[in-house]
Amino acid sequence: MPTILVKSGGEAAMPEWQRHFAEFAPGLDVRWWGDAGVAPEQVDYVLVWDPEPGRIGRMPNLKLIFGTGAGVDFITADPDLPKHLPLLRMATKGSTQRMGEFVCWAALSLLKDARRVALNQAAARWKFFEPEFTARESTIGVMGLGNMGSRAAVMLQGLGFPVRGWSRSRKDLPGVTCFAGAEEFDAFLAETKILVCLLPATPETQGILGAPLLQKLPKGAGLVNVGRGSHQKLGDIIAALDSGHLSGAVLDVFEKEPLPAESPAWAHPKIIVTPHIASLPSRRERAEYVAAAIADHAAGRPLPNLYDHARGY
Amino acid sequence: MPTILVKSGGEAAMPEWQRHFAEFAPGLDVRWWGDAGVAPEQVDYVLVWDPEPGRIGRMPNLKLIFGTGAGVDFITADPDLPKHLPLLRMATKGSTQRMGEFVCWAALSLLKDARRVALNQAAARWKFFEPEFTARESTIGVMGLGNMGSRAAVMLQGLGFPVRGWSRSRKDLPGVTCFAGAEEFDAFLAETKILVCLLPATPETQGILGAPLLQKLPKGAGLVNVGRGSHQKLGDIIAALDSGHLSGAVLDVFEKEPLPAESPAWAHPKIIVTPHIASLPSRRERAEYVAAAIADHAAGRPLPNLYDHARGY
Repeated sequence: MPTILVKSGGEAAMPEWQRHFAEFAPGLDVRWWGDAGVAPEQVDYVLVWDPEPGRIGRMPNLKLIFGTGAGVDFITADPDLPKHLPLLRMATKGSTQRMGEFVCWAALSLLKDARRVALNQAAARWKFFEPEFTARESTIGVMGLGNMGSRAAVMLQGLGFPVRGWSRSRKDLPGVTCFAGAEEFDAFLAETKILVCLLPATPETQGILGAPLLQKLPKGAGLVNVGRGSHQKLGDIIAALDSGHLSGAVLDVFEKEPLPAESPAWAHPKIIVTPHIASLPSRRERAEYVAAAIADHAAGRPLPNLYDHARGY
Repeated sequence: MPTILVKSGGEAAMPEWQRHFAEFAPGLDVRWWGDAGVAPEQVDYVLVWDPEPGRIGRMPNLKLIFGTGAGVDFITADPDLPKHLPLLRMATKGSTQRMGEFVCWAALSLLKDARRVALNQAAARWKFFEPEFTARESTIGVMGLGNMGSRAAVMLQGLGFPVRGWSRSRKDLPGVTCFAGAEEFDAFLAETKILVCLLPATPETQGILGAPLLQKLPKGAGLVNVGRGSHQKLGDIIAALDSGHLSGAVLDVFEKEPLPAESPAWAHPKIIVTPHIASLPSRRERAEYVAAAIADHAAGRPLPNLYDHARGY
């Protein structure tokens, strides 16, 4: 019986994982990552977010590696990761939809100054204010135009936001003004009123949301980071908020997660902090996705959302 | 020189009103509602939210009455209101767009449990949770399908929400399952997971958001009230939230505004309180709208968004 080791949600989540896999892959033995009763040579598949370095390399019969999220940087950080094995990013239909919903919620929250509304509610303060712009006057710039960025762009346009996009290689999306490469980056930023970061974590994108980029945004711009914590320099973002150059930020990811209680982001009057929930597919959705990919692999069909070690995403 | 009296934003807002009217209606004398130097017979137009009862009826040369919002119930409450004069509801293009944005923000806030996220941020608590549904599984029911309800329905569909609508007389909106009249009301409610109230304030709709209606919603439903405070029975809503029958509410309007500091709504863990900001057009937009209607009236063209005293909206 083929075996999958799961490390997601802790041992407590195993009964739920087993129930979902029983529905979509009834012939699969679903075991906890820390189960001492499973020998390394028994393992056919792993489903993980942050495996201990070296552990995956010691499984001689491993066939596929599944990340539990769209980003797999905590897996590729393992220097001994076997690079000849397919590594699949999680990109269920549900996760793309969820990301689009979150980006729309975040953009509307900045447009309506929802952080100010929440602080007024906390103080039982009825404080009326007139938002200056509608979505129609608030151009959104999406960095990263993969599955998630593309879906978010469509949904944002439906709300009335003009949308521009930037990616490494040029994309063509209906209704979206597309920019590409380093040479068009400044032009992309210059008229972006709300910047959404949906980039993958690569060496080139590390720290990209820092002072040099922020200064290229127009005064009063907003920021949504649903990429990775490694993209952002929180100190630079806070400085730009405090100077009034940025008007607000929604940050779903942080360099250190869980975000420490002493981080200045928590209480900042212009930051909405969300706990890395932008695009979390349900366990059932993820089990369905993994089961389908295992079946594809067994049948020799092409695999979806393969990580490219050379490209870095 | 024709004169308009303005009562909106207090005397402090008059310089701004005068600046905007100078742009759109340069020949208009724009004066504060409390200006003792303006005799009643000098007044041609009024722009008001809640005029003192009797005052409008004492202006013998009045031509048009403008409400500052989409609802004019605080004007029609005046028993001495001259009913032969055109009363115009404020429905700028911007206000319809703003309402759609607010409804989408509120629906996504319920879907993502943004109230819980905000309370966790206030406590500097990194608390991960898995939202069960996407928009695709969360049918929204919109009560009231006027300009605002129709635009909201289009925008909600763009986010992936299935949308159903209910109105007194039957409407036909693309993609929306439309219900009409008292006999179809229960069927409309039975599969509504997020109920949005955009009804006008009439005697029939008073207190409609109370226990009898709430009980007809499925368990776990959410509620958005962007209609009027008189639509809702806050005690019934809180009881339904506390019993778990409702999962959350976004309330933008209240029976008494400003909402008193001692209201249990402020601190309720499942209520997002917003201070009647769902659809506030900017003063500039409203001045433009009023100026255009005055020009239409002077030229004998039909007037937009007229209040119908018989219908009640």
